[in-house]
Amino acid sequence: MLGKQKAKYIQSLGQKKQRDAEGLFIAEGPKIVSELIQTFPQYIQEVYAVKEWIKENDHLHTRVVTEVTDNELEKISQLKTPNQVVAVVKKFDKSELPDVKGKISLVLDTIQDPGNLGTIIRIADWFGVDQIICSNDSADVYNPKVVQATMGSIARVNIFYADLPVWLRQQKDIRMYAAMLEGSDITKMDPIKEGLIIIGNESKGISEEIIELVNEKIAIPKKGKAESLNAAVAVGIVLAQIST
Amino acid sequence: MLGKQKAKYIQSLGQKKQRDAEGLFIAEGPKIVSELIQTFPQYIQEVYAVKEWIKENDHLHTRVVTEVTDNELEKISQLKTPNQVVAVVKKFDKSELPDVKGKISLVLDTIQDPGNLGTIIRIADWFGVDQIICSNDSADVYNPKVVQATMGSIARVNIFYADLPVWLRQQKDIRMYAAMLEGSDITKMDPIKEGLIIIGNESKGISEEIIELVNEKIAIPKKGKAESLNAAVAVGIVLAQIST
Repeated sequence: MLGKQKAKYIQSLGQKKQRDAEGLFIAEGPKIVSELIQTFPQYIQEVYAVKEWIKENDHLHTRVVTEVTDNELEKISQLKTPNQVVAVVKKFDKSELPDVKGKISLVLDTIQDPGNLGTIIRIADWFGVDQIICSNDSADVYNPKVVQATMGSIARVNIFYADLPVWLRQQKDIRMYAAMLEGSDITKMDPIKEGLIIIGNESKGISEEIIELVNEKIAIPKKGKAESLNAAVAVGIVLAQIST
Repeated sequence: MLGKQKAKYIQSLGQKKQRDAEGLFIAEGPKIVSELIQTFPQYIQEVYAVKEWIKENDHLHTRVVTEVTDNELEKISQLKTPNQVVAVVKKFDKSELPDVKGKISLVLDTIQDPGNLGTIIRIADWFGVDQIICSNDSADVYNPKVVQATMGSIARVNIFYADLPVWLRQQKDIRMYAAMLEGSDITKMDPIKEGLIIIGNESKGISEEIIELVNEKIAIPKKGKAESLNAAVAVGIVLAQIST
């Protein structure tokens, strides 16, 4: 049973302002909710699920489940087709920026499309890259569309936000690689153990201010005529080549 | 000036049934429409554009332009945010299946998401792969969402539909590579000059019937924990590695 006010409250977490104020976000669907319950049980605030999901997920031992009808689920879902379960989750605290030594980190300059950001998080997770530093004007990782597109990888990849030029200037003794339309051929590069891989906004690329800080420009060789590649596809190609 | 009946007719081309019956599809936005006008002038049936577009695209010498108001454009657009111009285009005639000797072709088994299909066409165009053979149950290439996602590459990549198992059995003396979760490491493969690269449905993969026809299973090494990669991302990684 779900009160009208409560439903309205959960729906409101679709807005960034509300997520920031409450320190909460929502995750939907059996796959991602079960990943989150297993990885971060302490972050799960509330779970609203249909009878079928509750029966099938008894092994998760979640104590915070409220059974809802299909009709009620529809009222709190952000999806066109609601999918069994909606969880209200505490935002992971990422106030301190991460240490980048000894590993590959992704740096995203103004990736604004939520689907792209979510897909990039999923790709990072596939290649074992566990931290991403986004410019402050990138999409919000807790946007429901981002959360969905990660397909559960949001539970395994740490996402940070920073004023990129300022933060990059503080990173000493680490190689920075900027993915550009022109640069050294990525397919001829050897895998690396450490470095920052910088990916830019799809139409504008990486900002001039950041390009000036970079050691190496890398590029995906173009053999045909398309003007650009999707940012997430570029991340996949780069990480397939250089991750170890 | 655009009549009410005409607007309704153009809108109806959003439906596959109507596109098939009329042999037409619609393309929207300055980028893709200008690519199509330049590449296939003979296929352009009608163009509806706002004054601004007409002024800026005088060099295209299109004789079939009708000026419309923003309001009228909105009535014929399939986009949330209409973008200056809508073209009604004749479907490219692709009744005969292509010759696959001497080049790399993509083969798509049940790629049903229009955005994925469009992105794959764009990636193929980037890597100079100019033909794609889709299973009959794949998304329709003339679906407005596919057309948009190609970002103009639809004008340069030939798309065919076939009963894949039947068609693949007819292809003799050509190597077939199936992208799977397990197979030989794609990042260790040398570029090829000829072959069929088979990509499967994201959740179901490649159908058993097709896998049996394949010479070689290839895979993108997984180093982290995500369960799968987006189909378009997989295409990008494979083509970056093996296209020449």
